[in-house]
Amino acid sequence: MIIVSERLNGQFTDVEKAIKERDAEVIQELAREHVHAGSDYLDVNVGTAVSSGEKKEAMLWMVETIQEVTDVPLAIDSPVEDVLKAGVRACKNPPMINSTQADPEQLNDYLQLAVEEDAAIIALTMDEDGVPNDVQKRVELAGNIVVAAMNAGLPFDHLYIDLVALPVRATQAQPGMVLEALQQLQGIADPPPHFMLGLSNVSQGAVKRSLINRTFLVMCMAMGLDSAILDPMDDELMDALITAELLMNKQIYSDSFLSAYRSSKRG
Amino acid sequence: MIIVSERLNGQFTDVEKAIKERDAEVIQELAREHVHAGSDYLDVNVGTAVSSGEKKEAMLWMVETIQEVTDVPLAIDSPVEDVLKAGVRACKNPPMINSTQADPEQLNDYLQLAVEEDAAIIALTMDEDGVPNDVQKRVELAGNIVVAAMNAGLPFDHLYIDLVALPVRATQAQPGMVLEALQQLQGIADPPPHFMLGLSNVSQGAVKRSLINRTFLVMCMAMGLDSAILDPMDDELMDALITAELLMNKQIYSDSFLSAYRSSKRG
Repeated sequence: MIIVSERLNGQFTDVEKAIKERDAEVIQELAREHVHAGSDYLDVNVGTAVSSGEKKEAMLWMVETIQEVTDVPLAIDSPVEDVLKAGVRACKNPPMINSTQADPEQLNDYLQLAVEEDAAIIALTMDEDGVPNDVQKRVELAGNIVVAAMNAGLPFDHLYIDLVALPVRATQAQPGMVLEALQQLQGIADPPPHFMLGLSNVSQGAVKRSLINRTFLVMCMAMGLDSAILDPMDDELMDALITAELLMNKQIYSDSFLSAYRSSKRG
Repeated sequence: MIIVSERLNGQFTDVEKAIKERDAEVIQELAREHVHAGSDYLDVNVGTAVSSGEKKEAMLWMVETIQEVTDVPLAIDSPVEDVLKAGVRACKNPPMINSTQADPEQLNDYLQLAVEEDAAIIALTMDEDGVPNDVQKRVELAGNIVVAAMNAGLPFDHLYIDLVALPVRATQAQPGMVLEALQQLQGIADPPPHFMLGLSNVSQGAVKRSLINRTFLVMCMAMGLDSAILDPMDDELMDALITAELLMNKQIYSDSFLSAYRSSKRG
């Protein structure tokens, strides 16, 4: 699994405060912890910590601040084009672009950016009509994304298709649609793109969030998910993830398989 | 999920002792606990508590002893034909036959028994050559089982195809084969048969057995597994099972979804 830490996000109170106060130490300590916990990428999102006009500068500060303490690549996460592009271009190592929707204009523009910057990119199976309320539209949009990536010359190893999990509490049929879409998309291309998920969305507003997150994660892994934005500091979540990899024969069994995985991932 | 409790099995020390001493109270207390925990069937297996010549009588004693305290149906579990048939015929409610292999002679004979007794039956995707070391043979044997069940006139709702999980510790590629076979077998018949697993096999000899069991269970559920022999007294296992059903939209979300499920299943 390719693990993108969700934690450096202004939606968390401590990060929001640190962005407002330009408190580098808080951001850097979180970055160190999440690298140590096994993150392959660190998602960077300024959230609503600052006003719209200040977001680009806040993003650039976060990127610079984090890069002072780690070489782990960043996932630059913003719905605002110039904030995202500025963040991407400030990265020392090729980042992940988080994210483009499947509408052709944005999709082609961001795929171009990914190719130019040698970056990975998350493409969501949603468009101007929002998140599909069925399986078929997700599969269709994933197909469009794959074709657009091919045309743009993006290596599929850089493409992360996100099937978009909505909260089980609010829209209970949605998680099952993600599972079904993942299943239908197996074999869509050879070599395949990555399949990814912003995991914690599925438990938004629910009780037992960690239980819901880890259960959904391993169900999706069985269906071919190989990447997720998640909290690698959630030990039970990581235990489930590691055990799912073990059961899919992606790491060797030993009586210390949990700690062996963690050691191998530790930054 | 259709839950078959694994616990009334002579391989457990307390059950072995109770069988040897014909201690009805121990057996009946376990039966009550496992019904209360949500078992749809109670598996009954005398294990190696008694010599071969005494197994039939021990099975009949167990069946009678358990039926004194519950109407929950039994899964009569023996590799020995006359022990199994005697147990099945002693059941007040239509039981589950556990199990037949896929060799035509035993398969047809046991399917016939299931039809006569209005029983459910577990059919293993293994034959005289043992458990297949690939996906394709499992799928082929499952196909043979489905055809034989059709010919025997067994309603598919009474057919439980067991893909046979071997221990991840010993044969690490095997659990993944079960997942892949489950996926390939979706849609094998309409209405479909059940897909089932003797869950705890997968963690035999391993550390972190409960973690391995519950992770494999929900991965298999995502692939269409709808029944398992397991320990319904393992709270974390049941939490995972309930959450997987929630995520597949098989029960309604409420903030008390864990306790709501348990209340609804409680015998």
